[in-house]
Amino acid sequence: TILTDFLSRRNNDRTDEYGGSLENRVRLFREILQDTLEAVGDTCAVPVRFAVDELMGDNGLLCTEEGHDVIEMLAELPDLWDVNIASWENDSQTSRFAEEGFQEPFIDFVKKVTTKPVVGVGRYTSPDRMVSLVKNGVLDMIGAARPSIADPFLPKKIEEGRIEDIRECIGCNICVTGDHLMIPMRCTQNATMGEEWRRGWHPEKFAAKTSDDSVLVVGAGPAGLEASRVLGERGYSVVLAEKSDALGGRVAAERTLPGLSAWGRVSDYRTGQIQPMVNVETYLSSELDADAVMEFGAAHVAIATGSQWRYDGVGKTNHFPVPGAVKDANVYTPEDVMASAEIKGPVLVFDDDGYYMGGVLAEKLCKDGLDVTLMTPDVDVSNFTNNSLEQHTIQSGLMKMGVKVMAKHVLNAIEGTSVRATCVYTEAEKILEFVSVVMVTGQLPRNDLYYALIDRESEWADAGIKSVTRIGDAEGPAIIAAAVWSGHRYARELGEPKTEGVPFKREITEIVPD
Amino acid sequence: TILTDFLSRRNNDRTDEYGGSLENRVRLFREILQDTLEAVGDTCAVPVRFAVDELMGDNGLLCTEEGHDVIEMLAELPDLWDVNIASWENDSQTSRFAEEGFQEPFIDFVKKVTTKPVVGVGRYTSPDRMVSLVKNGVLDMIGAARPSIADPFLPKKIEEGRIEDIRECIGCNICVTGDHLMIPMRCTQNATMGEEWRRGWHPEKFAAKTSDDSVLVVGAGPAGLEASRVLGERGYSVVLAEKSDALGGRVAAERTLPGLSAWGRVSDYRTGQIQPMVNVETYLSSELDADAVMEFGAAHVAIATGSQWRYDGVGKTNHFPVPGAVKDANVYTPEDVMASAEIKGPVLVFDDDGYYMGGVLAEKLCKDGLDVTLMTPDVDVSNFTNNSLEQHTIQSGLMKMGVKVMAKHVLNAIEGTSVRATCVYTEAEKILEFVSVVMVTGQLPRNDLYYALIDRESEWADAGIKSVTRIGDAEGPAIIAAAVWSGHRYARELGEPKTEGVPFKREITEIVPD
Repeated sequence: TILTDFLSRRNNDRTDEYGGSLENRVRLFREILQDTLEAVGDTCAVPVRFAVDELMGDNGLLCTEEGHDVIEMLAELPDLWDVNIASWENDSQTSRFAEEGFQEPFIDFVKKVTTKPVVGVGRYTSPDRMVSLVKNGVLDMIGAARPSIADPFLPKKIEEGRIEDIRECIGCNICVTGDHLMIPMRCTQNATMGEEWRRGWHPEKFAAKTSDDSVLVVGAGPAGLEASRVLGERGYSVVLAEKSDALGGRVAAERTLPGLSAWGRVSDYRTGQIQPMVNVETYLSSELDADAVMEFGAAHVAIATGSQWRYDGVGKTNHFPVPGAVKDANVYTPEDVMASAEIKGPVLVFDDDGYYMGGVLAEKLCKDGLDVTLMTPDVDVSNFTNNSLEQHTIQSGLMKMGVKVMAKHVLNAIEGTSVRATCVYTEAEKILEFVSVVMVTGQLPRNDLYYALIDRESEWADAGIKSVTRIGDAEGPAIIAAAVWSGHRYARELGEPKTEGVPFKREITEIVPD
Repeated sequence: TILTDFLSRRNNDRTDEYGGSLENRVRLFREILQDTLEAVGDTCAVPVRFAVDELMGDNGLLCTEEGHDVIEMLAELPDLWDVNIASWENDSQTSRFAEEGFQEPFIDFVKKVTTKPVVGVGRYTSPDRMVSLVKNGVLDMIGAARPSIADPFLPKKIEEGRIEDIRECIGCNICVTGDHLMIPMRCTQNATMGEEWRRGWHPEKFAAKTSDDSVLVVGAGPAGLEASRVLGERGYSVVLAEKSDALGGRVAAERTLPGLSAWGRVSDYRTGQIQPMVNVETYLSSELDADAVMEFGAAHVAIATGSQWRYDGVGKTNHFPVPGAVKDANVYTPEDVMASAEIKGPVLVFDDDGYYMGGVLAEKLCKDGLDVTLMTPDVDVSNFTNNSLEQHTIQSGLMKMGVKVMAKHVLNAIEGTSVRATCVYTEAEKILEFVSVVMVTGQLPRNDLYYALIDRESEWADAGIKSVTRIGDAEGPAIIAAAVWSGHRYARELGEPKTEGVPFKREITEIVPD
């Protein structure tokens, strides 16, 4: 508020000694800082966090102008400068749009104008990069909130030289979404985030196995990989069978999409952890049917077969199949696009999902040279990404590259190359021409194997099977963080006594009058 | 969830005995109800709330079809039927779009198919209407949540025949907005809502005055009227001076806008309460300058002079004046439109406010026969009304009546009949032709009188003045509820000892592990 209400030319129209010149607009900042320093004396240090650039051009603070001058004017006052860029959207950019260290060009002047220590942020997860920043005199300390959410032991692992054990933040901002949704924070990479006290899950410590039961994990997506990793840590004998020729499941495909390569860390970290474990065996190109699972005879079977996008358009908005939305009729799903299906333009991406997939596919198809229209019943493109601070960047980017946007429209029917759609506000139906349609609507679990095994439950005992459990998208299609969490929970709880009642501790509040 | 997941054809695709026929889709509902009845025995009654219509046509439950049939099938099972329409947007419609009793056509069949008592809702505040519903066999009990928020003593006042004392709900849904914004509930009509425990404000009881000090209230808008009413209840001698020839301030003007007539109750209730008070004198057409206030010599002066909309376009988005946005250049404010200024089309309504005003002015101007475009930097029309459940109805209505909508655009400049605007996403500038522009941007307090009195503070003692205080929009332009609250607080606290520290009780929570 000091910045926005007093410092900023666009907000401060005072005519007294707190308005006008920069010296005047800085006055309150300086006074509060001086008063604070005086009040605490030498009992503690007084750091200042200050955003040196608002990325608003002449309408806001610039690190080359007043942002620079403010630091110079107050250079030796605080005990520590914590510098970044404003607003939150700019400060906490995702890996989709910003590289590690993206704030450096804005803040690298600070150490040149102060002798006080300087800390900065920039989603740093690479120890080499951190060291070079300190060595080159850009920063004295590395700030890392999101990387510490993904791996609270990041500093410890650097200290111990365990670089390969760092669970790198993928920069997806699922952590941030909880803030907007008023729900506890979660993390794609770290399933123990928020569960440390509630469920007693330590990020790096695992209870030893309680039996010599073997476990067969079917499917090496986020859920299967995480289950295998944690079961491995616990000492269980695990076989992880993957039908395709690569580990990662949905992440192996999604990491190839524009901007999402860092999401591959979900797979890379787990693959790296599992690989040296002698008690975890991984088999690629190994699709298992019910016969094979029964024959294999593991004590516990985790079905992590994932989910698939629907062709029929059923989803949040359309509860009945969209006429004409069938496979092999120039109708495609995200899996088809990621598998490089030959898609002809003009193409309509109908996004009734509203998270990243619709927008990122529109970007890919546009970059492939196609004429792309993105239609969504939501009010804007990739609506859920308002919660991950990405919405403006996504829609702005798509529109600038030429993607046409039809918000607040619902797809009603596909008839050859004609598409019927209705405006949600006016209820007017439009007929549009597209050669192809990509349906980003609902998803269905791939649970044929699961039900085939359930049908043969009477044979389990003879086969040595004690349990068959669905995890991840196979249980319920959701975000990657949910799949990782599901796999983690399965592995944590296997062989442990069932808890009575609510399976986690809660913070029950009592009202204490002031 | 019973309704949406099992009962509804569009959500239930089960093939077992819980899917398919209505009998099957109703099965879970019936079983849960039967189990509940059995579990509680005759220890208490089991009411059922059931929405008989979803207002979705064939895609949802209809009160003429399955909505009717479900009630018939379960008619005598519950001890009480609580019937309404779904969803929340439909159930809790505002006075802008629905009359008192708007749910009757949907639920009036219910008493014909059950002998059990039936309760319904419909923003009922009129005792005559309530009596006729019971007498005509439509309902046995009247449900009234919002009317009870506005006046918790509504039933008591009916019982005592104090009809004129009922503080009628204006149907604005400010109460609902708190739910979406995760803030405590507030009410336009009832400033004590949520303050009963926190500040000890009883809706109907007031501490007696603590002195014989007189009070001059300048301005009879929502803040001035509420202050006068509560000061009157406390026994203070009050003079309320209003410069115009009518009471109500902004509400006197806004009640004339399409759909907002019920908002006039803010003025009507207070006017009705003040009128019989012998200790409150009201003077219309009485504009006071500083000389007049000094001469009047009241011990306490409350400045409730309200606010005015800006011509220069400064607001949430534009922090510097918009070039060309000046009075007398075919640029108008909401006050001009409400004062029936002669406005020529095509007209641009630039809404950077985002609550009701921009949308309702566009509606008025369109109904006046003008060609209207509504431009807003927000993602949709009247964006804040997403919180009051009105957004879809507003934008849908405007678009259907022909108002053109330019969302995500910012007004840059007005040059004669040319307007320059930028798309927030693409940053592309467009030049558009409009004969008139209505600026719904920021507001400024009308505080000339206040500052004139502050400048003469040294003369107060001689004039007998002990305090001069701004209340309502004159202190800070905001919603009507905030103005009423501000006037209420001023009147509650006048002459009372100042509290030390935080001026209200808080609920400090302690964590108690489960």
